[in-house]
Amino acid sequence: MDKDKLTVVCYGLGPIGRAAARLALSRKRLKVVGAVDVDPEIVGRDLGLVCGLPSPALVDVTDDPVRLLAGKRVDVVLHATGSRFAKVYDQLAEIAGNGASVVSSCEELLFPWISDAEKAESLDKLAASAGAVVVGTGVNPGFVLDTLAICLSGACDGVRRIEGHRVVDAATRRAPLLAKIGAGIEVAEFQRLKEERRIGHVGLIESLALVADATGIARTRGPIDFQETLEPVVARTRVQAADLVVEPGRVAGVHQIAMGSAGGAEVLRLDLAMFVGAEDPHDEIRIDAVPPIHARIHGGVAGDQATAAILVNLLPLARAARPGLRTMADLPVPRYTG
Amino acid sequence: MDKDKLTVVCYGLGPIGRAAARLALSRKRLKVVGAVDVDPEIVGRDLGLVCGLPSPALVDVTDDPVRLLAGKRVDVVLHATGSRFAKVYDQLAEIAGNGASVVSSCEELLFPWISDAEKAESLDKLAASAGAVVVGTGVNPGFVLDTLAICLSGACDGVRRIEGHRVVDAATRRAPLLAKIGAGIEVAEFQRLKEERRIGHVGLIESLALVADATGIARTRGPIDFQETLEPVVARTRVQAADLVVEPGRVAGVHQIAMGSAGGAEVLRLDLAMFVGAEDPHDEIRIDAVPPIHARIHGGVAGDQATAAILVNLLPLARAARPGLRTMADLPVPRYTG
Repeated sequence: MDKDKLTVVCYGLGPIGRAAARLALSRKRLKVVGAVDVDPEIVGRDLGLVCGLPSPALVDVTDDPVRLLAGKRVDVVLHATGSRFAKVYDQLAEIAGNGASVVSSCEELLFPWISDAEKAESLDKLAASAGAVVVGTGVNPGFVLDTLAICLSGACDGVRRIEGHRVVDAATRRAPLLAKIGAGIEVAEFQRLKEERRIGHVGLIESLALVADATGIARTRGPIDFQETLEPVVARTRVQAADLVVEPGRVAGVHQIAMGSAGGAEVLRLDLAMFVGAEDPHDEIRIDAVPPIHARIHGGVAGDQATAAILVNLLPLARAARPGLRTMADLPVPRYTG
Repeated sequence: MDKDKLTVVCYGLGPIGRAAARLALSRKRLKVVGAVDVDPEIVGRDLGLVCGLPSPALVDVTDDPVRLLAGKRVDVVLHATGSRFAKVYDQLAEIAGNGASVVSSCEELLFPWISDAEKAESLDKLAASAGAVVVGTGVNPGFVLDTLAICLSGACDGVRRIEGHRVVDAATRRAPLLAKIGAGIEVAEFQRLKEERRIGHVGLIESLALVADATGIARTRGPIDFQETLEPVVARTRVQAADLVVEPGRVAGVHQIAMGSAGGAEVLRLDLAMFVGAEDPHDEIRIDAVPPIHARIHGGVAGDQATAAILVNLLPLARAARPGLRTMADLPVPRYTG
């Protein structure tokens, strides 16, 4: 029976990696055969215990992925080490080069031709020739503002404009996300970090590019031009997250907008607000088309839980796809695969 | 340039077939090369004029699909002749046997193993060996209560239950739909037609089966048991559609519920109300899972327009899929392909 299971390696054991590993360990159709992280605190320890499970998984964490991948049959690697494509490229190439497929939470990998088209091409070739599939996903980017918008456009003719909104109360999110959105820092510090491109949500432009590419929305209007804005949301009153208090006047989070224009008209807009104390969190897609569509997810799709879920749900779908660098729009409709 | 276009035949020119043909004729990436219908009123006439366009399409309607398909390269047939798989089977087999792919509005074709597993198997083999793809789609069945629910479950772990609701104000719909839901008839007449299986929406059980199959929701609970109820919605006040007045006490439409149970628990429920005068039309999906999801499409996805759109949007996606009998869950995420 174990022979029918997909063999999985969990690569990267930060909060998202651990949450996804817990789900992978719970799924009957998956068999976790390895775990990788660089943190000396957890290398050599049991994956189950590292993930906070009551019993061991009988899989030790290693810091040597090369040896791990060479030593056993690995169908898919669940990869969660970083947001930037350039930074994780060598890891992805190593894995795919060994013939193992990859489902990664790397935000830029959702549509990596934006950040580095050359590296994307070379990863595609390498994966295709090794028979591996590489795909980036998550809840955002990866689902609410891109895959779901693409799916909804399937019921439309004459699409003129697609608009997505996501409002997240960051008080409900994990610590690395609070740091990424600058919760609690001074506005001046936010501006400095912004100039250094060290703050904000990564992946909004990639979501926009994926929607543009999959729907061809600007096809008849000529080339599409992408723009992005990033501003701090400043706390007006004292707001708080689990381990953090944001005083009035300090940064509570971010407001980012990605826009796509073609032929003088804005055809795409993704608007993301993530801050501590956001009221009425939700996800919303509006499509100006025939028929028009106005969809809303009440409360929004809970980020950390959903990201872990979609990473794990995609493992069998990715493995069955055509080898190469793929996007969410190339894969079959995502679905629960538990 | 025409060589790069997908060649399309429009087969079946009732209201949905004509609406889809109009879209197909408007799409730059498609080339309509033939049209089929049995209606002697339109055989021999120009497709464009039959569809109400101001100028001819330079494609005549024929009642001889065999000759049409044998005579030219046809990539995909846009098929809209009937709701029952058994009734359209021979047409589908004829088309696929000629190596042309099919995107069909046949409701039972969404998941034809329910109505006739044997015929579904034989169609699958025939299509696969001829290199053709056969897929059934539409807005309902085909999108709001199945593909969209499947897509949303992709962000979930531990799915316990999926529930879909669709409320349609039938006053906005085409005449054949008004007939299908019994708008304007007596309740006794409705009951008689119900016993003869001649009334009601076709495809709800197929939607349920597709969701069950794609998500494997009942996998750990054992085999799933399907049930369906169909009741008339009786008009309390005088309500009216374009060409129809429904007096109080007469049938305004239908209320259908399809349920799936496994291991003693209801795991799936699709609830469809289509009647003249329905207030607050909408589509809604609720998933009891981690995280839970509650999505709502305000106003609902407009049935006739969206069905035409999804049929045409699917043409290039179907053509690129793996040959055989496929479902919406096998194809890439649907999307606007205009």
